[in-house]
Amino acid sequence: MADRRATVAVDGFGVEHGFDVLASGIGEAVGDGIAVRVFGPSAELEPRIGDLDPVEIVDSVESIGNDEEPVGAVRSRPEASIVRAVADVAAGDSDSVVSLGSTGAAMAAATFGLKRIRGVKRPALAAQVPLPGRTVLFLDVGANVEVRARHLVQFACLGAAFMSAVNGLERPQVGLLNVGEEKGKGRPVDREAEASLLEITADPGFGAFEFLGNVEGRDVPAGIADVIVTDGFTGNVVLKAMEGAVATVTGAMKEAARSNPASAVGGLLLRPALSGMRRDLHPDTTGGAILLGLRKSAVIGHGSSGAEGVANAIRLAARSAEGDAPDRTSALLASTGLDRREKDQTTEE
Amino acid sequence: MADRRATVAVDGFGVEHGFDVLASGIGEAVGDGIAVRVFGPSAELEPRIGDLDPVEIVDSVESIGNDEEPVGAVRSRPEASIVRAVADVAAGDSDSVVSLGSTGAAMAAATFGLKRIRGVKRPALAAQVPLPGRTVLFLDVGANVEVRARHLVQFACLGAAFMSAVNGLERPQVGLLNVGEEKGKGRPVDREAEASLLEITADPGFGAFEFLGNVEGRDVPAGIADVIVTDGFTGNVVLKAMEGAVATVTGAMKEAARSNPASAVGGLLLRPALSGMRRDLHPDTTGGAILLGLRKSAVIGHGSSGAEGVANAIRLAARSAEGDAPDRTSALLASTGLDRREKDQTTEE
Repeated sequence: MADRRATVAVDGFGVEHGFDVLASGIGEAVGDGIAVRVFGPSAELEPRIGDLDPVEIVDSVESIGNDEEPVGAVRSRPEASIVRAVADVAAGDSDSVVSLGSTGAAMAAATFGLKRIRGVKRPALAAQVPLPGRTVLFLDVGANVEVRARHLVQFACLGAAFMSAVNGLERPQVGLLNVGEEKGKGRPVDREAEASLLEITADPGFGAFEFLGNVEGRDVPAGIADVIVTDGFTGNVVLKAMEGAVATVTGAMKEAARSNPASAVGGLLLRPALSGMRRDLHPDTTGGAILLGLRKSAVIGHGSSGAEGVANAIRLAARSAEGDAPDRTSALLASTGLDRREKDQTTEE
Repeated sequence: MADRRATVAVDGFGVEHGFDVLASGIGEAVGDGIAVRVFGPSAELEPRIGDLDPVEIVDSVESIGNDEEPVGAVRSRPEASIVRAVADVAAGDSDSVVSLGSTGAAMAAATFGLKRIRGVKRPALAAQVPLPGRTVLFLDVGANVEVRARHLVQFACLGAAFMSAVNGLERPQVGLLNVGEEKGKGRPVDREAEASLLEITADPGFGAFEFLGNVEGRDVPAGIADVIVTDGFTGNVVLKAMEGAVATVTGAMKEAARSNPASAVGGLLLRPALSGMRRDLHPDTTGGAILLGLRKSAVIGHGSSGAEGVANAIRLAARSAEGDAPDRTSALLASTGLDRREKDQTTEE
């Protein structure tokens, strides 16, 4: 895989700003040498993408919307663009998949359509939180609203392997989100996961990641670790609350700048510097969230992405395939014994 | 209680900026007519507080630090300032208590030393999140890392009664924090609480609060509701993550303003307007968190408070006593049948 760039299957529906933006984003990614197979309406895509190479348009006119119940929609509609894009990866025609549409539908389609890594019972959705100077991989942000300690430990491995394989970190720092830094804090599930992570990483032969122990809510936006792990309920509300807090502060700043002529001039003078800051903190710069724990990579970008966001989502999917993140994850899980099947099988399996 | 202002017992230890700041804060609150009984070292307090009236200094030289295990410390040290301040309220010599020290110690002391409202098994720590145009009461932010649905429903009542009694809202809007707005989202505990809140508030005779249903993480900093309810694990990490996100953005702004001479001038011109924004969003403006579910009010301010933060914590404790928040809470719980003891008594009781 090192000799050529990956082929990425792109769900052609879901970009809120329309097909022009999707097409420019694909164009940017292809400019980097990535091959794209896009599953969307030829009538819209042909005129916009034209002879761009290597891009293949696979005519798909059916899509799953944000308002549909994802699991039922994915199961019942094999012709939907996201289901076909995932099937393309499963068949080996693409290396990884990108969706900018319904997160639920993309998660369901990928979980059903792609094989899980040995021993992984619960794939996790990982968001990349862009911060000045560091990107934090934060998971789970919504795939599993309830977890057992074993799953949190696996999430640590999934996240660390991803950050090594895709972002090139040699020994990522991993934290467990909790209500305090001291040992033994939190719910039983957190205490058990903490103990288990301490045990695994205490082995002098273990070098895959460094476990920082418990970290607090403020440590996520402070960028204290490369990977921060929690259950999918907590991760989802924390991620959205942080995004909302940033929006509230930047909104209040704009109000402040409008409050009188002097501050308006101040706002104008600051604008170029602030736009750099906004780019640093903007979700589009990371390419979106990634579903970890499957043998192939699935990236879920923001529906509100601009062309750069679309391109970065495709780049992320390509890098993830090229870095062999799933293989590295398998190896890490095997080295920790976490690839063995859970003893207490339930009806979930 | 309407004819005179309340008497507030203040723990004299815990203000990180020292006794000068504590004394000025007390001075400001007393200027409003509030009576204060402060439990701290006379040698430090006498010279700073002097003849200020009505202030009584009760010499207390023992304190519980942030690094001590709170429950054990509170149980074993009846002479500690926070324990004595709580006992003063229990004895009827003060109406409510304020601590600016260890949150854990203040929660433990108040929970052990003050009676719970009938039917309330789990007092909750409520943070006031200051937002432009609205203050959101967010609970639980750390008293109960695990809850049952019944507790979430009680938290809604505790929060609504507080916002009515203390902040004068006629019919507060209450939301349940969840991973999506649709009915039936989230963990079993959230689904059960949602159904229960919908049932209670569907009664046309019920006017104590309006239930908005599920709200998402971004809705907390957007100020979509007056009261937002969740378990103490989620609430704690969400609150700290929001505070951290605000710090990251304002830090990045300062960096941006330093990046070149033009933006530095811009930053200077904007400063007066931004300082108004900072005041709007600063935790000191609300006076801190409040422990709800007890027959007397306990306010827990930030250790990092300035004099205004200290004064606002004392004002909040006074208003809470004067507004009879606990009595209103009792009445609301009785009207919903939530004052009855839980059927499934466990060893916790």
